[in-house]
Amino acid sequence: MMQDLIAAAEAAADAAGAVIRPLFRSSLLVEAKGDASPVTEADRAAERTIRALLAERFPDHGVIGEEYGEERAGAEFVWVVDPIDGTRAFVTGRPVFGTLIGLMRHGRPVLGLIDQPATGERWIGAAGEGLRFRSPMGGTPHTRRCAALAEAELSCTSHEMFTPAEAPRFARLKQSCRRVTWGGDCYAYGLLALGLVDIVVESDLKPWDWVALAPVVEAAGGAMTDWQGQPLRLDGPGQVIAVGDPALLPEAVALLG
Amino acid sequence: MMQDLIAAAEAAADAAGAVIRPLFRSSLLVEAKGDASPVTEADRAAERTIRALLAERFPDHGVIGEEYGEERAGAEFVWVVDPIDGTRAFVTGRPVFGTLIGLMRHGRPVLGLIDQPATGERWIGAAGEGLRFRSPMGGTPHTRRCAALAEAELSCTSHEMFTPAEAPRFARLKQSCRRVTWGGDCYAYGLLALGLVDIVVESDLKPWDWVALAPVVEAAGGAMTDWQGQPLRLDGPGQVIAVGDPALLPEAVALLG
Repeated sequence: MMQDLIAAAEAAADAAGAVIRPLFRSSLLVEAKGDASPVTEADRAAERTIRALLAERFPDHGVIGEEYGEERAGAEFVWVVDPIDGTRAFVTGRPVFGTLIGLMRHGRPVLGLIDQPATGERWIGAAGEGLRFRSPMGGTPHTRRCAALAEAELSCTSHEMFTPAEAPRFARLKQSCRRVTWGGDCYAYGLLALGLVDIVVESDLKPWDWVALAPVVEAAGGAMTDWQGQPLRLDGPGQVIAVGDPALLPEAVALLG
Repeated sequence: MMQDLIAAAEAAADAAGAVIRPLFRSSLLVEAKGDASPVTEADRAAERTIRALLAERFPDHGVIGEEYGEERAGAEFVWVVDPIDGTRAFVTGRPVFGTLIGLMRHGRPVLGLIDQPATGERWIGAAGEGLRFRSPMGGTPHTRRCAALAEAELSCTSHEMFTPAEAPRFARLKQSCRRVTWGGDCYAYGLLALGLVDIVVESDLKPWDWVALAPVVEAAGGAMTDWQGQPLRLDGPGQVIAVGDPALLPEAVALLG
């Protein structure tokens, strides 16, 4: 069963990549100059492709996607899809955006796929299986040990994602870490799953931003929770902590929670 | 003559890439966990390789490098080298660091090469020649028109690079732009040269951070100056503006200068 689900996620990511790649760095995008419409077009076309493929293989499954909303969201299995996570990275030509395909069973993430269409990298995490990873640029598919924030590489897409109430809490955590690198979107979680980043802290993530990431992080040996150290919820505020070494969680929660 | 100089820069970048690639995302780097020594090792080995190759072809030329300082810095031709620009990107596995090889003649940048060893991308800009660019991920080697900051995609490696005096000036500029993307180091200038980013504003850059970038930006149709709109100087504070459309310069200088 899990192998069929993984095969479907891979086929859906392949199909989405074929829609997305021709637009990446294209003259259409250059000429649009920040106007979102060509990206929205690619986003929608890719999501339609993913939904059609999943619906054909699993007609009883539900799906939640950024562009086309919910269908059968109360089903046992619900796919959660973001065709282009990291729109700013995509429109500025950075190969760190990604296609995210996650699967929840009874409301819990059990399978996640991160695909990087431009570089050909792909991470697949599934409950009860190790992380599968392929990349022409190398990397080993497991997190590394890191017992203290003082040794930790922190990653965050932008300091502008935090509310005025969240900003000082994030600042406290950041000051406790060894170093911070900005930018990255879903790619930062992929790097955490390769033992190159120790902690990612973000906020205001939507379900399609994080459902696919959690199984990848967990299959690599890490953990992903909200800022209180509790399991992420579809109806939560999208405050996310991902750690490569679960030993980091109490210290992070104490500073953020 | 210029073709010999370009060929030497390419040969030096090829040799540096062969030194750097095996370390990227390697277990050595994962185990070092933020300890800079393996990166410093790669940095030094790559710079030695570049310097040896250039000295063999052009024994009268000078060279300035981040790791090994100056030699014959008063020569007519002086190479300016940064083997790994974007150390944080490199240690966290992001393929946006770069090898920078620039050449000054009588103190003015005349040739610049940006190499991305992990993705196989390379930009070469030379006085009097168009931009040469190769990438497995596509892109067109010229900047785009952008007459006003209100339409501009801004890029900056980190908001933490500015002094307390600079921060409000940068904030004013940022508020006038359409959007900002964080992260990127030298890669952001490469994306500007592909018409995907309109303006990059940074500070505290050293000569080895910017000398190679200026000829790339200029060969693509853009301009690169200090925050007063004046030519960059080796002994300046490293306040850099790069614009894809030179029409943006007066507005940017008015906000920053």
